[in-house]
Amino acid sequence: MINRRDLEFLLFEVLQVEKLCERARFADFDRDAFDAVIDSAFVLAKEEFAPLAEVMDRQEPELRDGRVWLPAGAQEAVDAYIDSGFLNACFDVDDGGIQLPNSVFIAASVVLTAANVGLSGYVGLTHAAASLLLTHASEQLKRAYAEPMVAGRFFGTMCLSEPQAGSSLADIRTRAIPTDQPYYRIEGSKMWISAGDHQLSENIVHLVLARVPGGPPGTRGISLFVVPKLRVNDDGSLGAGNHVEVAGLNHKMGCRGTVNTVLSFGADGECRGLLVGEVHQGLACMFHMMNAARIGVGASAVALAYTAYMQSLDYARTRPQGRHVGNKDSNSPQLMLTEHADIRRLLLLQKVFVEGGLALVLYCSRLLDEQSAASNTQAALLLDILTPVAKSWPAEFCLESNKHAIQVMGGYGYSRDYAVERLYRDNRLNAIHEGTHGIQALDLLGRKVRAGGGRAFRLLVRRIEADIEGVSDNASLVPYAASLSAAVAQLIRTTDTLVACSKLELSLSHATGYLDAFGHIAVAWMWLRQAGCASEQLAAPGGRDTSFYDGKLRACHFFFTYELPKAVCQLLVLQKLDDSLLTMPEDAYLGS
Amino acid sequence: MINRRDLEFLLFEVLQVEKLCERARFADFDRDAFDAVIDSAFVLAKEEFAPLAEVMDRQEPELRDGRVWLPAGAQEAVDAYIDSGFLNACFDVDDGGIQLPNSVFIAASVVLTAANVGLSGYVGLTHAAASLLLTHASEQLKRAYAEPMVAGRFFGTMCLSEPQAGSSLADIRTRAIPTDQPYYRIEGSKMWISAGDHQLSENIVHLVLARVPGGPPGTRGISLFVVPKLRVNDDGSLGAGNHVEVAGLNHKMGCRGTVNTVLSFGADGECRGLLVGEVHQGLACMFHMMNAARIGVGASAVALAYTAYMQSLDYARTRPQGRHVGNKDSNSPQLMLTEHADIRRLLLLQKVFVEGGLALVLYCSRLLDEQSAASNTQAALLLDILTPVAKSWPAEFCLESNKHAIQVMGGYGYSRDYAVERLYRDNRLNAIHEGTHGIQALDLLGRKVRAGGGRAFRLLVRRIEADIEGVSDNASLVPYAASLSAAVAQLIRTTDTLVACSKLELSLSHATGYLDAFGHIAVAWMWLRQAGCASEQLAAPGGRDTSFYDGKLRACHFFFTYELPKAVCQLLVLQKLDDSLLTMPEDAYLGS
Repeated sequence: MINRRDLEFLLFEVLQVEKLCERARFADFDRDAFDAVIDSAFVLAKEEFAPLAEVMDRQEPELRDGRVWLPAGAQEAVDAYIDSGFLNACFDVDDGGIQLPNSVFIAASVVLTAANVGLSGYVGLTHAAASLLLTHASEQLKRAYAEPMVAGRFFGTMCLSEPQAGSSLADIRTRAIPTDQPYYRIEGSKMWISAGDHQLSENIVHLVLARVPGGPPGTRGISLFVVPKLRVNDDGSLGAGNHVEVAGLNHKMGCRGTVNTVLSFGADGECRGLLVGEVHQGLACMFHMMNAARIGVGASAVALAYTAYMQSLDYARTRPQGRHVGNKDSNSPQLMLTEHADIRRLLLLQKVFVEGGLALVLYCSRLLDEQSAASNTQAALLLDILTPVAKSWPAEFCLESNKHAIQVMGGYGYSRDYAVERLYRDNRLNAIHEGTHGIQALDLLGRKVRAGGGRAFRLLVRRIEADIEGVSDNASLVPYAASLSAAVAQLIRTTDTLVACSKLELSLSHATGYLDAFGHIAVAWMWLRQAGCASEQLAAPGGRDTSFYDGKLRACHFFFTYELPKAVCQLLVLQKLDDSLLTMPEDAYLGS
Repeated sequence: MINRRDLEFLLFEVLQVEKLCERARFADFDRDAFDAVIDSAFVLAKEEFAPLAEVMDRQEPELRDGRVWLPAGAQEAVDAYIDSGFLNACFDVDDGGIQLPNSVFIAASVVLTAANVGLSGYVGLTHAAASLLLTHASEQLKRAYAEPMVAGRFFGTMCLSEPQAGSSLADIRTRAIPTDQPYYRIEGSKMWISAGDHQLSENIVHLVLARVPGGPPGTRGISLFVVPKLRVNDDGSLGAGNHVEVAGLNHKMGCRGTVNTVLSFGADGECRGLLVGEVHQGLACMFHMMNAARIGVGASAVALAYTAYMQSLDYARTRPQGRHVGNKDSNSPQLMLTEHADIRRLLLLQKVFVEGGLALVLYCSRLLDEQSAASNTQAALLLDILTPVAKSWPAEFCLESNKHAIQVMGGYGYSRDYAVERLYRDNRLNAIHEGTHGIQALDLLGRKVRAGGGRAFRLLVRRIEADIEGVSDNASLVPYAASLSAAVAQLIRTTDTLVACSKLELSLSHATGYLDAFGHIAVAWMWLRQAGCASEQLAAPGGRDTSFYDGKLRACHFFFTYELPKAVCQLLVLQKLDDSLLTMPEDAYLGS
């Protein structure tokens, strides 16, 4: 459940997505077409996705006779997703897609993920795998594997981690042994493989990172392979099994609807893998996909918190409990929960986190559109630096938001009679997969803010400053603009300090604190942009939706009053370059 | 799993619990006796409690034929608890107890709760119910109901909430209708009743809040009743069923081993209740018990996070993953997780939260001992003001700590193969029950800091200042002492501002932010006290356990560097008396 009014505000008022239709790539679309996509997402969410959410959590996928089975209804739901044109939405028309802007697609995905994150996993991975092949694979591989994915006949997976190599991909061991045929022989095990098996599609296309023997060690010796569950004949028909075995299932705290598997390749027969791109260039291919995948994780984190917010708000509006502070007349009627200051605090925290997070992921999706429409260098730079933030900030703070949704509902929120407890469990995943929170932080501080002498960082600062300048004639927003300006100044100072620090390890030991503060400032910026739009609308003659816009201004005030100072405080701490994270000896945790 | 060395440090070095043996009440104990209690807790935890923790989470209690059944083994475990002398530990010898200091008992309870929170629920509620009766009930009721609880033959519950009245006890409706017999007829429903039925004891003693018709409305018209599951004859033998029905079970996200019930009283026959204390004085009796019960919740929150910390630390010490930043040699061996700065951050956050939280709950338990040994007024005042903090700070920040334990372990932490995901689910309860986080905040800011013209608050400040003064000749601790002093000054200023605010609603709208900052300052104080002891030990000739004490100093540094500034930042925000939590209209969340 997402507030459609908010989605439309962000897409069409803040991000002005309609302007994309002026670009050749998106010229076939107009506002009506975008509305129809959003309509369709809400219908699909309500009719197919949401009704299965609870059952997919409670009846986990089962492994029987080496195959994974999902609860009844999952097939129909993914079929409806494909039939509604979501699987092929963003691909080029030439590849069987419809060239929908990514920003509209992500908006629709948020609606669907909010309804059922378990199902979203299967189609999301297929989307990602097809994108990767369409970007990096040969025409032959595209035809044989990517096009059936775009058409929804094959589904996909990403096989990176191994039991001994999670965050450290340099240490993967799966081998790809050349043969005298056009394929390699794949041998090894992969861990944490989402959607690694199921009966939802005719075939499953695993994208597998593996080492060709004799290559360099570490990440420079990793290649990427297409490894289908069933082999595909030259005419496109399905052939024999390819010896990809489900060695076991991982049982998770949440996101239980998306099966998580241990896969074994080639243990009981020849498992064939087809090289994608150049040998030893596998990680580069994979990273090419990372921006979209990571923004997708951020969007998922937002979706899970957004729907919990809506549910807790709905509860708070209809649950009578207690009276105003100081009212001792027990015969007076009880107030609704929404009348209590602390409940308002919990609701406003959720509002600023989920709407701010949504604004951020849609902003990044809009950058993806700029990039795909016109190979826009500035968009690419901004996307590079914002991606770890758009992945991580929602994973961290939208989980916090899920926590508040439970709190609003008290004991009921902690019970399994309401969805908020499930959504909290689901969202705990997002700081872990697709690069942990700490890995994203190293990406931001270790690479992105340093790249090109800080080019992306300076560009981002200019963009924020332009928006600050943009509200300078709006007296009601000037105080927020000034706060943001001061926060950005501290961010610059902290960045300079950390980048200039001669000891790289010391600098990077502060990466996570830096990421969190950076994220808060980015979201404050999103709130200022929203407030700017809302303020204009309220000032317009014959104003409509005044409550909605008023809410945006109040949320902006709340974020700037209670949240932004935390980021500034954090930055001041980081500037001290404390070295205690480098010096803690292992024995000192418990004593010895 | 709790670090025994830490427990002993806090009890015997920081709190000097042995000195309690100089008091008449505790004169029968010595250090050896205390050690034996702790020994016994560790044995019981390992042999009886821990082995059942996972199974009690997975096989929830079942309702069959109107009765609740627990998994096999639960009976043996609680029997062992009783046999080890924990159920009667703190009661007076005259009441069948052994007069163990509460601080030692809480230390043991933390060990047991860390091993199995589900089992702890049954015995903890029995302890609380027996305490209440021993304080407030007639001799006859004590003999009939409290003594069998102390002996472990009967178990107890607390029946406060109703489906329509959670935080708002003023609105409970359960009725107690006088009869021409010495008992009342109880009619109504109670919600969220932990341990409301089971087969672990011969009988269950429900302590029920109900209204005697004709009494004043609201909380001034609530009385307290003993309502046994089975009636008790005058000779102490068990009589007929008392028409307390289990109307249903609530299924929770965590703490699943402690059954949670909806109870119906008198729906199918006469349910007899016996008045405890005076009519209409029920809530006062109940509140009398609150300090101990709330500290117990804080202790439980600490226990759940402490054991997760130990497990994630154990994992991090033995899991190789990745290399030092800048080391591109993939042939070099992988580092253990503990070598990575971000993992150290996650471990140190856990260390400061769980050890700081444990220090706080044990400090409060020690105050309970002062109070019981000598009716110490200062101890009572400190306890009053610290209780909402000792309940809430661990519930909030030890949950955060549980989150970090999962993060250290990555995908494994999110899987159900390790306990850390369960412990996170378990701990989410503690901010909800026994008075929500928001209710505790109102108690602190609305009552405790204002009571007696701020007498308790001023006393607390003097105690903190005395400890600051106490380390003034220790150069290495002076910077922390100065930081704490500055933070306390801001706390005083904020308290003055909020108390002086003429608009009570505005002042109290900041209660939760105030509570959180207050808690951080209290825990900083606990860290300074620990650092003071550790520093002395390190300076002593022939120092032993240097790693342990060094760890305490490093943790103190970490808390003061990274956590305390957050509290100061929060206080500065509160001083502005922003009124947005009072003015948010309901329509502004979503728009209309």
